[in-house]
Order: sequence, then structure tokens, then C-alpha cells
Amino acid sequence: MSTSAKVFLYDTTLRDGAQGEGISFSDAGKVRFARLLDEFGIDYIEGGFAGSNPRDRKFFEDIARERLGHARVTAFGSTRRVDVDAKDDPQLAGLLAAGTEWVTVYGKAWLLHVKDVLRTTGPKNIQMIADTVGYLSAAGRQVFFDAEHFFDGYKNDPAYALQALGAAVREGAAGVVLCDTNGGSLPHEVAEITHAVCAAFPGVEVGIHTHNDSGLAVAAALEAVRAGARQVQGAVNGYGERIGNANLVSILPALELKMGFHCVGAEKLRKLRELSVVTDDLANQRSDPRQPYVGRAAFSHKAGMHVNAIQKNPKTFEHVVPEAVGNQRHVLVSELSGAANVLLKAAELGMDLTALDKKRVSEVLDAVKRRENKGYSYESADGSFKILLQKVLNEHTPFFELEGFRVIVEKRGSDEPCISEATVKVKVRGETELTAGEGSGPVDALNAALRQALTRFYPEIEQIALTDYRVRILDPQEATRAVTRVLIESGDGVRQWGTVGVSENIIEASWQALLDSVEYKLYEDRAR
Amino acid sequence: MSTSAKVFLYDTTLRDGAQGEGISFSDAGKVRFARLLDEFGIDYIEGGFAGSNPRDRKFFEDIARERLGHARVTAFGSTRRVDVDAKDDPQLAGLLAAGTEWVTVYGKAWLLHVKDVLRTTGPKNIQMIADTVGYLSAAGRQVFFDAEHFFDGYKNDPAYALQALGAAVREGAAGVVLCDTNGGSLPHEVAEITHAVCAAFPGVEVGIHTHNDSGLAVAAALEAVRAGARQVQGAVNGYGERIGNANLVSILPALELKMGFHCVGAEKLRKLRELSVVTDDLANQRSDPRQPYVGRAAFSHKAGMHVNAIQKNPKTFEHVVPEAVGNQRHVLVSELSGAANVLLKAAELGMDLTALDKKRVSEVLDAVKRRENKGYSYESADGSFKILLQKVLNEHTPFFELEGFRVIVEKRGSDEPCISEATVKVKVRGETELTAGEGSGPVDALNAALRQALTRFYPEIEQIALTDYRVRILDPQEATRAVTRVLIESGDGVRQWGTVGVSENIIEASWQALLDSVEYKLYEDRAR
Repeated sequence: MSTSAKVFLYDTTLRDGAQGEGISFSDAGKVRFARLLDEFGIDYIEGGFAGSNPRDRKFFEDIARERLGHARVTAFGSTRRVDVDAKDDPQLAGLLAAGTEWVTVYGKAWLLHVKDVLRTTGPKNIQMIADTVGYLSAAGRQVFFDAEHFFDGYKNDPAYALQALGAAVREGAAGVVLCDTNGGSLPHEVAEITHAVCAAFPGVEVGIHTHNDSGLAVAAALEAVRAGARQVQGAVNGYGERIGNANLVSILPALELKMGFHCVGAEKLRKLRELSVVTDDLANQRSDPRQPYVGRAAFSHKAGMHVNAIQKNPKTFEHVVPEAVGNQRHVLVSELSGAANVLLKAAELGMDLTALDKKRVSEVLDAVKRRENKGYSYESADGSFKILLQKVLNEHTPFFELEGFRVIVEKRGSDEPCISEATVKVKVRGETELTAGEGSGPVDALNAALRQALTRFYPEIEQIALTDYRVRILDPQEATRAVTRVLIESGDGVRQWGTVGVSENIIEASWQALLDSVEYKLYEDRAR
Repeated sequence: MSTSAKVFLYDTTLRDGAQGEGISFSDAGKVRFARLLDEFGIDYIEGGFAGSNPRDRKFFEDIARERLGHARVTAFGSTRRVDVDAKDDPQLAGLLAAGTEWVTVYGKAWLLHVKDVLRTTGPKNIQMIADTVGYLSAAGRQVFFDAEHFFDGYKNDPAYALQALGAAVREGAAGVVLCDTNGGSLPHEVAEITHAVCAAFPGVEVGIHTHNDSGLAVAAALEAVRAGARQVQGAVNGYGERIGNANLVSILPALELKMGFHCVGAEKLRKLRELSVVTDDLANQRSDPRQPYVGRAAFSHKAGMHVNAIQKNPKTFEHVVPEAVGNQRHVLVSELSGAANVLLKAAELGMDLTALDKKRVSEVLDAVKRRENKGYSYESADGSFKILLQKVLNEHTPFFELEGFRVIVEKRGSDEPCISEATVKVKVRGETELTAGEGSGPVDALNAALRQALTRFYPEIEQIALTDYRVRILDPQEATRAVTRVLIESGDGVRQWGTVGVSENIIEASWQALLDSVEYKLYEDRAR
């Protein structure tokens, strides 16, 4: 157990994060996400607008039935209305009805908002804060007070901003949270102001809640911690409206690995990438390969020089050990790659090419470059890369031969659904097989027909699940005539592999990726 | 003209940025990009590895024929080899051959690298720096010295790191640049160390070059400027290997709008979004909607409360004026939207719905929500949103009626190309038209057939260019059976509009988006 100072992590993914463009959790997904945060060691989970949003209320009902080991669920709401007693405010009633021990209420700390948005006076707003915190505390709740626009408010009128916090503290708030709601504050401003707040309220837990509008949310949160804040609010993967909230996945390793604070501990930190990736799945987001620490590209090396140095000493080009955050080093095969990279990548894929003579290595390199010039990309298509190597090295024996396929999509009236049918004709060990398949779309129909044609010969094909299907238009100005790159992710319960196809025709590109996916599976099974 | 302190901007997009995954500029694109930077007011443009990369050498030949108004092109290379005289080092010869007045050389400032990568001694590395800078200066070049891994080196051995800089300064370097090559340093460390360097070398131009591995590159660069650095190196849109380089597009507005420094001036800053978007085009990248300041989502508001406040006073929820960086405010139509949002969005699209009674407004809201539940997303599909509103309000008269279509994709052998054909049958003003089209893929064929069917009746359809075609799989675990969302961007030289289609069948989804695109064009032309 670490003896270093504890920083509490407060996750607002389900509330502030869910306001992000395209973020959508199912009801079951929210509960799964909360369990994930709990297991990971997050201290507080903000469940949503308990007082005003019916779908969020559902979450509080669901989570009440779960037994969380560590995390405390907080219900989120606002201070009472301008003209209503706290006890008569339906929003506060909803907050209490959520049944959580912890609640978080936000209130105004910037006179501009008090006057222009609430349309009330400074003193009346202070009274709203005091009444709300007092009412919820008296009802037995632990209350965090989120001071909205705190930094803008402080810059405008420090005394008023501190008064807003003071009202909450006096009425028994368990902590006050300084919000940079518009995301415009610079890290050094956040540091100075947080320092002033900590000095004004000794012994009070101060939190920091930043937004990324200036690309500085993570830095501002870290600076606040250096200035004395001991609670950090943020969202997993930085979800949130506009540019997003402070990214907990970036803040956490900096606090633990670089600044000597204790948050979740080294063991749980090794699941950081998993937390990030599973959250993306639950929120229906594609994982950002360039996310600090956990992205696929975070420890990718492609320039020959770097790969060389990394082989000599990983510390030369890696700021943390990839495994400490559950990530791993990748060697990228790319335009810039030299022989060393290709050999390393091949080794990663279980092919030892070190015995090859220089001529063969340069044949491999040429083949990779030719394909890359056509638009293929092997950075996330290890399966296709391995098959390409096998072909160049004449180690490839096809499992079947394609004689042809035909895909038909038909619609017979504007309100009729489309019908998709495919036929595939293949030759396996001298036998010709012609099969038909239908599907929800042309690629699905083609996939169905292909599987049907091959399953008799290779029953293990049934194990393949296609888990992702991505389409990239390479020259977007060509629109529907553009060269299309299709990336397919496949899995069989044991392995995961990516394959790629490129063509002006999306069906042809999909076909190539499907074909590589099937061949990769058949090869790997035989290689085991 | 501003009288505030000048910070020089040094762009390394074409060198360090180009190492980023998927970044690829054509030769012509590089020159266009350099002109763009020049017009924008960037001070230095690093053109590439002049001494070692043939494709980069081509750029120096090309750019020598251009007349840049403001920017200076710099050629990039390294210190001389361990065992070779500067005058005999072919890499330095290549650097001189680039013919630029300015050159940048990187050298080691961290003993770990000196010993483990260069495999030489501390003093010999200092001599390599001195020889290289001296040689290039004597050859009439202005030399920047990039001190690689400077912060890691300084943390390990401050005296040695300063010695490396001192050698360059003594030999006439025009500036020394402190690099956080692994991207692991925290902003306050960068501030402290930069401060120490500025104190040690008064009067010397100090630059800062950071990487984003910790998500802190922008903050670290800004802190370095506060500590005395007057040159900032970075890449447009933060391109670069692993997580990327410091993003100049985020750094610049912070320096100019928030910190009072002079870089390019307010007028050019208003082209910041254009710089970002055009660079993405040239590098074949999709623009990140969540990029600070310039992303499509940077000033998007969807929660009803925020939109309300923004209407009262934009300062309440916007950290800078969107137009100051060439961006604009957007109202998002989404799950969370209330009536106010839909009315605002409609107004943005030129439809005044304020006179509608509450019942009609709630019909509109219901329709939007029903479609969103099916997977439609209107956040970047204004065209489809407008058509949906028209349909709900019974203001929609279709321009034609679809009787059916059929798309066939066929492949007759594994090495044969795919053939795509489509037939479309439509009824326009009582006349039935059956046309066939072929294309490079099924959607292209369908588009060709549809246009042919309609052009006789609506010749203005010829003006539509499809500029982008995106596919999003909504439930990726369903793979080829998944619900697919297709987004199409269209333009006619005057307007740009987005449309959306959703279906399990990619052809059907594409058809819906195509149909909306055509109908939107026909409506708008008639509305003018």
C-alpha cells in the first residue's frame, strides 16, 4: 500500500461525458460501466441528473441493486430554483429520491451567470447555495458543491466566488469543486486560483473539474492537484460536450507514475487501457489510436532510427513502460519502414525472417511499398500483413480458389426493404462449390455465401466472428468513385486479427478483407 | 500592429508531423502547404530531412522555385557522425545542398542516449555539436540547434544538458530549442527548466519542442513561453509519431488571445480553422470534430440549458469568440434536445418555426427522436434534417417517385476486376424513366443511374458534387449485419450540405443519403 497522498477520482462520464457528440450508453451499459469503474478503483461515480432526467433516474434504480465494492455513486442536480423553497423544489426532491448517500449540486460562482442566466442578484444566489446544501445535508446526504464557472467568476470577482464556496462549506458540504466550465482557463491561472482557495478553506476537500476547450484540461487538473486539490473530476476518454471533459485516463497515470500521488495503485493501473477500450465499446465510440498512454499508437515506433534505439534501450524513446498502463509496444509497417522494422514486425507475428538474405528482405520491402502506394495500410491489419509476407516468400498455399461471385441488391418501391443476395463459386481440393447466401446487406450476403461454400471443407470457419467493419475513403473528393479501404476485425474467441482490402469498389475491397480474414484463421489454426 | 512580445512559430509538420500514422502529403501538397503556412504568417517551415531522405530533397528543390513572402524554410538534419569530420559527412553535405539560409540540426543532450544509442562519450558528443554548428555557420547558414531529449537529459544531469546548448551557442547558433522528445515531461518541469536555460543564456533565442505522449504538449509549450521561450515548434493539427507533436493550432490562439503575445495577428488568426481543415485535406486526414478552437464541435451546444444561456449571452458558455479563430457556433440536434434547440436549428437552416403551436413543435421533436432511436444522426446532416422537418410539417412534395432499383456487383475469377451495374426506375410528373448506370462500385453505379434518370427533368443535378462519403457501423459487434449509417457531403459550388441514411444494408443507407442530397439541392434552388 502506498503511503503517498491520496487523490480522489470522481468520474462524470455518465453525466457530463454523456453530453458529448455521439456518446450513447444503453441502460445495461451504464450499469456495466459503473461496475467497471468500481473494480478499477474509481472513488466516485456521478450517475446523472437524478432530479430531472427520467433515463438517468432509471440508472439510480438499477445501480441500487448492485453491490459496489469501493465506489460511491453520486446523484447530480442543481441548487434550488430562484423562487422556490428548497423543500418544495421538485428537482431537489428527485435528487433525494435517487437514494444515494452522496449528492453533487452545482451552483453559480460567476456574477455574469447569476445576472444574465439566473436573472437574480448576487446575495440571492448565495442564499440558494446555502439553502440547497443545508437542506440536503439535513436530509442526511454527503454533499459536494460544484462551483460552476468558478475560475471565470474568480477572475471577475474573487470575493464573490469565494463567498459562493463559503456558503456551501458553512452548510456542511463534504467538498467544494472548482469548475472551469467553459474550458478557457490556462493551467497557471488554475494553479494560482486553486492555491488561493485551499488557503482560504484549510481542511476542506477541494476538487477540480476542467473542460478541454483550450486543449489544456489535463494540464489544468494536474496543476490544481499540485496547488492542493485532492479530488479530480473527469470523464473516461475525455468524453463531454464540445471538445470534452478532462480525460481521467490521461490524468491518472500522470498522478501515479509521475507525480507520486496515490489513486488506484499500480496493479489496477495496468488495466487502464482495458478501462479505456471497454468504455469506448459501451459508449459506442471508436477508440482513438492517438489517445495518450492507452492508444494503439502510444508506443508505436516506425522511423527506423527510433526502432533501433528502442531495441538498444526502451527508455530512450518511451516516457513510461507501456505495460504499466496495460499497453504494449508496436512496430509499424509503413512508408518510412526499413528492413529492421519489417523484421521486427514479422517476429511480432511469429515469423522469424532473420535468416533471410538481403535480397529476399528487399523483395518483402518492395512488396509492402507497392501495396501501400495503392492504398493498403497494414498498421491495423496484421492478418493481411502476414498473408502478404507469406505470398512474397512463396509460403502461401491458398485454401481455395475463387471462380466468381455475384451480389444483387434490389429495392422494389420506395417503402420496400432492400433484398441482398449473393452467389459464390469456389473450388476446394478439386471440387467446385456454388452457394447462395442472403443477408442484411451485400457484404453480409457475400460473407454468408462464402462461409456456406467453405464450411463443409473447413468447419472451423464457424468460429470466426466479424467484430468490426470500417470503411475509409482514400480520396474523398472522388466520393462514390473514390478508392475505398475496408478494414475488418475478426476474432475466434482466442485471437483477434485485422485484415484490409482496397478497391474503388467497396464490395471488392470488402471481399479482399473477408478473404484474408478466413485465410488467416485457417493458417493460424494449422500453425498451432 | 501589436507592440506585445513576439513569439516565433516554427512548423515541423512536414518533418516530425509526417512521421504520424497515416499522414501523407503528395509532393505538390507539400508545396501548397508551405504556401498556406507562409500566407498565414508562420515564421519557420521545416521542410524535411534534407540530408538523408530523397523525397524530402525534392521538396527543397520545389520550394526553391517559390517566392515566399514571410516564412523561412529550414532544412533538418543531425549533428555529424561520431567518427567523421563535419566536412566529410554526407548528411551535412545534403543539408547544405538543400540551399536554405536556415538549417536546424538535432543533437543529443541526454547522456543515456549518448552512451546507449550513439555509443560514444559525453565530451565527444559535445564536440560533435560544436563541430556541426560551427561548420554550418561557417558555410553561411543560420543554425537552430534542437537539443533532443533536453528535459530528460537536464533532469538526469543539468550541467551536461547545458553544456550541449553552450557548445551550440558558442559556435554561433541562432537559437537553441529544448525538445521533450519522449513527451513525458510535466508542464511545471518544462517551465522550471526553460527558466533555468533562459537565465543561463541571456539574449539567446530559446525554442520549445514538445510531444503529446502525456496529453500535455500544448500546456508545456505555453509554460515554456511564460518562462522565457520565444520560439514554439509544433505541427498543424498536432500530427506526429505516436500521440503527436504539440498542436500549433491550439497553441497559437492561447498565445494571442489569452496570453498577450504577438504571433500572426488577429486578422490571420481568423483563418485558423481554414489552416487546420485545408492541412487535413492535404495530409489526407479526416478533420477531428473535437479539435480545440477549430473543431466542428468546439462551439456546439446541445443541452437545452446551455443553448438558452448562449442566447442570453454567448460569453456564458464560450471561452473565445468562435469567429476569432474562423469557427462558428452550432446548435446540435440530439437526444438531449428540447424544443428551443430544434427551433434554433431550424432558424439556422432558414426555417422560421416560431409561429408553430406547441403541438406541432412536439410532433417535430417526436419525429427527430424516433429517427435518432433508429440510428440517424443529424449533427452533421443538416440537409436530411431540413427534409425531415419539411416532411413532418407536410411541406414536402417529392420531386420524383422511386419505383425500384437493382444493383449488381459481379466478379468472374479471383484476378478479374469487379463489375458494378445499377438500374433505377423513377416516375417524374407522371412519366416513368428506367435507366442503367455503371460505376466503380455499387453506390457509384446507383448514383450514376439516378442522375441519368433525373437530369432530363432537373438539369441542375449535374452541379452536385459528392465530396465525402462516410460509413459508420452502429453496433460493430454485428459486423456485416450491423446497422450502417452513411453520411454524404455534397456541394454545388455555392453551398455544402450533409445528408444521412441508416439501414442494415449499406446500399439502402447510401440510397437514402443520395436521395436526400438530391432533394435538398432541388429544394434550395427553388427557395432562392
